Amino acid sequence: MPTSPLRLGIAGLGTVGAGVVDIVQRQGDLIAARAGRPVTISAVSARDRTRNRPVDVSSYAWEDDPAALAARDDVDVLVEVMGGSDGPAMAATEAAIAAGKDIVTANKALLALHGQRLALAAEAAGRTIRFEAAVAGGIPVIKALSEGLAGNAITRVMGVMNGTCNYILTRMENAGLPYDTVFEEARSLGYLEADPTLDVGGIDAGHKLALLAAVAFGARVDFAGVAIEGIERITIEDIRHAADMGFRVKLLGVAQMTGRGLECRMSPCLVPADSPLGQLQGGTNMVVLEGDAVGQIVLRGAGAGAGPTASAVMADVIDLARGIRVPTFGQPAATLAAPRAAASAAPAPHYLRMALVDKPGALAKIAAVLGDAGVSIDRMRQYAHQGSAAPVLIVTHRTTRAALDEAIAAMPGTGVLAEPPVALRIETV
Amino acid sequence: MPTSPLRLGIAGLGTVGAGVVDIVQRQGDLIAARAGRPVTISAVSARDRTRNRPVDVSSYAWEDDPAALAARDDVDVLVEVMGGSDGPAMAATEAAIAAGKDIVTANKALLALHGQRLALAAEAAGRTIRFEAAVAGGIPVIKALSEGLAGNAITRVMGVMNGTCNYILTRMENAGLPYDTVFEEARSLGYLEADPTLDVGGIDAGHKLALLAAVAFGARVDFAGVAIEGIERITIEDIRHAADMGFRVKLLGVAQMTGRGLECRMSPCLVPADSPLGQLQGGTNMVVLEGDAVGQIVLRGAGAGAGPTASAVMADVIDLARGIRVPTFGQPAATLAAPRAAASAAPAPHYLRMALVDKPGALAKIAAVLGDAGVSIDRMRQYAHQGSAAPVLIVTHRTTRAALDEAIAAMPGTGVLAEPPVALRIETV
Repeated sequence: MPTSPLRLGIAGLGTVGAGVVDIVQRQGDLIAARAGRPVTISAVSARDRTRNRPVDVSSYAWEDDPAALAARDDVDVLVEVMGGSDGPAMAATEAAIAAGKDIVTANKALLALHGQRLALAAEAAGRTIRFEAAVAGGIPVIKALSEGLAGNAITRVMGVMNGTCNYILTRMENAGLPYDTVFEEARSLGYLEADPTLDVGGIDAGHKLALLAAVAFGARVDFAGVAIEGIERITIEDIRHAADMGFRVKLLGVAQMTGRGLECRMSPCLVPADSPLGQLQGGTNMVVLEGDAVGQIVLRGAGAGAGPTASAVMADVIDLARGIRVPTFGQPAATLAAPRAAASAAPAPHYLRMALVDKPGALAKIAAVLGDAGVSIDRMRQYAHQGSAAPVLIVTHRTTRAALDEAIAAMPGTGVLAEPPVALRIETV
Repeated sequence: MPTSPLRLGIAGLGTVGAGVVDIVQRQGDLIAARAGRPVTISAVSARDRTRNRPVDVSSYAWEDDPAALAARDDVDVLVEVMGGSDGPAMAATEAAIAAGKDIVTANKALLALHGQRLALAAEAAGRTIRFEAAVAGGIPVIKALSEGLAGNAITRVMGVMNGTCNYILTRMENAGLPYDTVFEEARSLGYLEADPTLDVGGIDAGHKLALLAAVAFGARVDFAGVAIEGIERITIEDIRHAADMGFRVKLLGVAQMTGRGLECRMSPCLVPADSPLGQLQGGTNMVVLEGDAVGQIVLRGAGAGAGPTASAVMADVIDLARGIRVPTFGQPAATLAAPRAAASAAPAPHYLRMALVDKPGALAKIAAVLGDAGVSIDRMRQYAHQGSAAPVLIVTHRTTRAALDEAIAAMPGTGVLAEPPVALRIETV
């Protein structure tokens, strides 16, 4: 093991980059004791050199071009904390690989879309790309999965990995507010990305799930294979009625290997209110890892913010300083299996919310349509009429989504629906 | 990195040893893909060669003496899963170090009592001792702490790390049964160690806390510095009344660095019923890690059993196969600080349960005694008289245990106590 300093080049001085600089500056002795060698910063890069920053970077070399930063002789590791699935982040990453540097990144979009090609290139050059900070912020979940559970065949990975969506959903429930009101609240608090679809559309969380699935199942990253549905259509009524039945609504990512292939979904699901996932409030993240030997491991922590994200970046940096070189996705990228996406989701119980018109036999007609499609009812609740329609909730037994969709398609023909039904998957946790 | 097999010698073929053999036999391809080389078993050792076992070990060499196993030329890593703080486990460990072998162990007692000396010796020989399986079973907590949070100054570590005690406490609450009944139930279910004091006396969990604290705070392992109190004196009344006030009783380990030194306690504490620790039911373990950058990370999983413990052993084995060589306690043993144990616990709110005799002014006298000792009352609840005494619960504001003990010592002098009071610390989580 070398005892010379490990020298960082930090590309990006936003929240996360400043957090990394802060840890390197404050915890130099601690890091040196743990890593067996000092970790230093040689150079930094950002869009605007003159901007006021919470950390002093005047003692480091400055590069306007992050690709030039990555190629510097006095940089051993590129820390890429700019973000973006291409542009400067891609240029800097490719420059680092070409110059034979290791890379530590928080960039989930870049890796979800281009991770296989970049990992192959880095590994061909004898280098690695580490991305603990890209998934679930401060939670060391990539390490837990790729190293801590390395003796397990992973059976399922689940996670609430977008704090903004969980904030919106729990705030709706706790304050009894509609989606639009809480969405605007989150925007004014600065919780939303510039393009809010990344958050509420489930794309950001979908990027993270694609990365987790690759590590869990030894498959090439396949963001296109993630079925994504956002939380935009979740109403306060869904949340209230789900609570009545003992459930909470979460934007939940699920990746599992089934006989029909790898199933990856990021979608609003119902989970039992008294489960660890159901109890998760606000912006906190949670990841559930299931292995054939270990059973279920649950990890919980902050999914965003300067400190937690920088903590994850520094875990990767200290690993490299210690000489720990695990392949990007837990095994060499050249050995990852081609993705074989399951054509449809595994059967599960579902929650169905309907409003039925006030006619004799309305409920019987709906029950008949469900029965015809092979969907059987576990629990049903009808509420008092509100105006001319009565809310009806149904929890089904395990069913395929296809069978449920067949029933839903037949429902308008009964003439008893007051509005289109809402169907949500119930995930067993 | 070598591509030759990493060859194990497994000392101990009980639950955990058989679990390790099972994983190596079933998951050979997966492990080789992840580690970049095969992991094989050369030889095994156990007390009784003829015993019927759930795995076939006939193809491995047999050694009656685990020390001879450790020294074999065809063994690269000693897997010590016999247990015991000395005797054969110590002999095998010392033999492995002398022969220049790495060691993976699940033996918390051995390391809690002799870890500093053994780690020094192993590191002097250029080898390492890994012990993920010794703390919180399948939860990869040593890895999370020593690697995943390596960029953090750790501020506090807490954990429920003895599943048997948590089973007893939650079973008492859920079934409304007294301690003795549930203790016997746990014994008949095989949940208790041969010497049950190791479980219910807090010693087993204390061993684990001593190891966690060493990694968290870069201090030499100091089991003698852990203040240990068991759950034997917890009554169903304590559990019921704590629940009335919104708390649950847990055998909770807490290690924190304060201005007065390192504070390590394993004792029954009250935690908020709606916190992750409060919601932990049955034999599951939970560890809470707090760092200055990451905030709070919560890890939850099975703390015992063949699969989970073998999963943790295999994580260490695969690390070694990958060439990952982190020092036993996260930094070289020679650099660990001498333990400086805090003389007393940091101030905290406390729960006080008393039975007061039916006299006018009884409560006022108790309040006066508390006030004289500088203990102020946050909440108080008096119940209807049961016979000649009335149960009274008090939750204090933050106080030192010394001040509280002063008040408790003065209480008999008031003449209003029907029985000695019970005091439990409330841990803020």
